[in-house]
Amino acid sequence: MSLESIKYKRGYLEVLDQLLLPLQTKYVKIEGVEDGWKVINKMQVRGAPAIAIIGCLSLAIELLNDNSSDKKVMRQEIEGKLNYLVSARPTAVNIKLAADELISLANTLSADETVTSEEFKERFISSIEGMLSKDIEDNKAIGRYGCEAILKNIEGDGQVRVLTHCNTGSLATAEYGTALGVIRSLHAAKRLEHVFCTETRPYNQGARLTAFELVHEKIPATLIVDSMVAALMHVRNIGAVVVGADRVAANGDTANKIGTYQIAIVAKYHNVPFYVAAPFTSIDMQIPSGEHIKIEERPDKEMTHIGDRRIAAPGINCWNPSFDITPASLITGIITEKGVFLPSMLSTLFA
Amino acid sequence: MSLESIKYKRGYLEVLDQLLLPLQTKYVKIEGVEDGWKVINKMQVRGAPAIAIIGCLSLAIELLNDNSSDKKVMRQEIEGKLNYLVSARPTAVNIKLAADELISLANTLSADETVTSEEFKERFISSIEGMLSKDIEDNKAIGRYGCEAILKNIEGDGQVRVLTHCNTGSLATAEYGTALGVIRSLHAAKRLEHVFCTETRPYNQGARLTAFELVHEKIPATLIVDSMVAALMHVRNIGAVVVGADRVAANGDTANKIGTYQIAIVAKYHNVPFYVAAPFTSIDMQIPSGEHIKIEERPDKEMTHIGDRRIAAPGINCWNPSFDITPASLITGIITEKGVFLPSMLSTLFA
Repeated sequence: MSLESIKYKRGYLEVLDQLLLPLQTKYVKIEGVEDGWKVINKMQVRGAPAIAIIGCLSLAIELLNDNSSDKKVMRQEIEGKLNYLVSARPTAVNIKLAADELISLANTLSADETVTSEEFKERFISSIEGMLSKDIEDNKAIGRYGCEAILKNIEGDGQVRVLTHCNTGSLATAEYGTALGVIRSLHAAKRLEHVFCTETRPYNQGARLTAFELVHEKIPATLIVDSMVAALMHVRNIGAVVVGADRVAANGDTANKIGTYQIAIVAKYHNVPFYVAAPFTSIDMQIPSGEHIKIEERPDKEMTHIGDRRIAAPGINCWNPSFDITPASLITGIITEKGVFLPSMLSTLFA
Repeated sequence: MSLESIKYKRGYLEVLDQLLLPLQTKYVKIEGVEDGWKVINKMQVRGAPAIAIIGCLSLAIELLNDNSSDKKVMRQEIEGKLNYLVSARPTAVNIKLAADELISLANTLSADETVTSEEFKERFISSIEGMLSKDIEDNKAIGRYGCEAILKNIEGDGQVRVLTHCNTGSLATAEYGTALGVIRSLHAAKRLEHVFCTETRPYNQGARLTAFELVHEKIPATLIVDSMVAALMHVRNIGAVVVGADRVAANGDTANKIGTYQIAIVAKYHNVPFYVAAPFTSIDMQIPSGEHIKIEERPDKEMTHIGDRRIAAPGINCWNPSFDITPASLITGIITEKGVFLPSMLSTLFA
């Protein structure tokens, strides 16, 4: 079973503290939006989908214990608290989108005079709970479609070796994962021979989190450093690369964790299919191409230190972009919960 | 001036302790072969050329204080001590080659009855001292030829941005360096705009040592992690990549630090010239191609730990090859002290 990063039942929420991983497995209890804000802000949880869901669930917890019976007050409180939650990590786009949707729902329910305050609360909480189950369902669909697409190239009922980058698993989503969900599906179908995961410098999400999930679930796995991808593809027969996405542009160009572009070039050179796995909502038709995506640059300290230990020569400048753009021309297919698409198909799909 | 990794004058030898870098700059005094063996074995010095020279210089120090006047005894002691020094790092090929050469010199001098024991000692020590100055001269020639080759592609007297990998500087050679020597030459000629150095996981030679040398000499430099090379080439105009070599096969295939092959693929994709800088002795015509070079695999701990701190999930398997093979087809030129050669020219050159 997948690693549980979120434990939720109505009125009860616990999240796995990712800052303590991989050395300690400890859950943090969330009793309301203030706790929700804290775990997001302190990066005890990460991954855009996970942040959105945990933020909203913390609101659901708080609402359940709220005895207010004035719909207008409730509406106002909801809007304020959602904006507060969004402020915990301003660059995470999913929680902003989720907040906008929920504020609009609150407006509708508040304006509808046939809805009682009890119904308001019930329908609002159910809607948040729906986000949790939809994320899991979508990821499982991504897993199925990705599994199918990758196995098309494999003869008979043979097994496949897959490479992934960064963390896109239970620890980045509500559960199951996107790219790592595809790998889970292959493993469940007994068609995965081995998975190789990159360390993913400088923040080591691969070595710390993906490796942790793979060990936890006894999926046969090997860790490599980011510079070994080409050497690996030369000596082992890798059947596919599957990575996640922060955002996909209208032409299929994909923003993802730094290093993704490099892996895509190396995969092309070795004729290894390269897949991006992401929920449909990651496709942003407002962005014509990757050139229009602004690249966030992160602090030098992520590169120069491990915890408080300096690992780079004092005085050296650093360049630390947090992601890069993989051009559509290097992408074999984009795996979504609605199917697998060629990058060039996106515009027709939305037209 | 280059960082001094070896301080030598007749009868006196100190080497920079690389285990303490980049946080401490401390020299270790070498009073004989036992000290030489220790600094090599404990990896206080590294880099195949540096190991050979320091090992042999430690013998020169010891011989100078040796009052023996029996040439036969001296010859015997020299052979034993050189074999002992080679045993400090059995995979380093340069020290083995140097030892073989010196043993053969000792045999000749011992057999030649016109040579007194004093002359034996003097000529033997001078020969070792010659290795030190030859390494520096060769590296400076590599620097000049590399500088010329790279600047051929640069319009007018413009400056160039260069990328390098691992450490090939004063800390890996007697002084000056191979690939980093080329960068020093470009800088001295005021034609270097900027150098980017990769972190070079898992042992971080780039972040620790190359960055240290570049900061020390005030060469304008930026550190990147290994997975950022492609993103860097996309957003900045990189004029050349220059890396070192462990060994070059007869067909030009080159074994070098893990990650070199990946950078070469990425350079090809972006049409960036890719140069290998190495002394002529690194070319091994006995090896027909890269496929015949055995790849050493290193302990997992290099990847899973920084010092004693575990950074990867417990229980994960690792793959840790110490170098990879860059095919000749990806190499623009091999820069040696005798000139810059196309990989395909090597066989004619030696014929």
